[in-house]
Amino acid sequence: MTFDPATLVYNEAGLIPAIAQDAATGDVLMMAWMNAEAVARTLETGRVTYWSRSRQAFWIKGETSGHTQDLVAFRVDCDRDCLLVTVRQTGPACHTNRRSCFYTEVQDGAEVEIMAPMEA
Amino acid sequence: MTFDPATLVYNEAGLIPAIAQDAATGDVLMMAWMNAEAVARTLETGRVTYWSRSRQAFWIKGETSGHTQDLVAFRVDCDRDCLLVTVRQTGPACHTNRRSCFYTEVQDGAEVEIMAPMEA
Repeated sequence: MTFDPATLVYNEAGLIPAIAQDAATGDVLMMAWMNAEAVARTLETGRVTYWSRSRQAFWIKGETSGHTQDLVAFRVDCDRDCLLVTVRQTGPACHTNRRSCFYTEVQDGAEVEIMAPMEA
Repeated sequence: MTFDPATLVYNEAGLIPAIAQDAATGDVLMMAWMNAEAVARTLETGRVTYWSRSRQAFWIKGETSGHTQDLVAFRVDCDRDCLLVTVRQTGPACHTNRRSCFYTEVQDGAEVEIMAPMEA
């Protein structure tokens, strides 16, 4: 079956959530959004490309920071309304300079930071 | 810092995406949605509880199927608008009886099923 980005299920804004997972460690790095064109560009270029809701523009991950995500695998869920991209992550995925955006854990009702920013 | 579910960032429907990851294997199992009360219930009970958008009701994962998710860790991302729950998954996470909902991979422009349903 040939893959057509138009067959995915997008929300009312034309977006689908994409989870990025580190192909080497299995760590979940971040979640961001793609539109159909970002899906197509990600698959064509092998560079993970999101749609920035705040900037309303394509967001080629790492284009300015150098913290790129090279696509390793591209998966679709059963409802076709969520994506999982496994990636080779260069540097931190998070804008706070942490490897993953999920660096805050709730432990016994309190928030605990479980990950420090990476060295520059 | 004490954790308050009201400090999370919910969408216009009052929901936040929650990614479920298998604590044992690191596999990403599924993505579903929680509202503030589902977040509170998940933390209180240790049983991962979503909000079903189709049924407009709380969805204690596995309540009818037996395919429960016991909470291992609860993480919040940098923007506080996405959750990562690591879980002990009993049986398949997917309603298609597959371990993960992400069983379809796009390879060379074609969709390939990479995971078979589990044995009953």
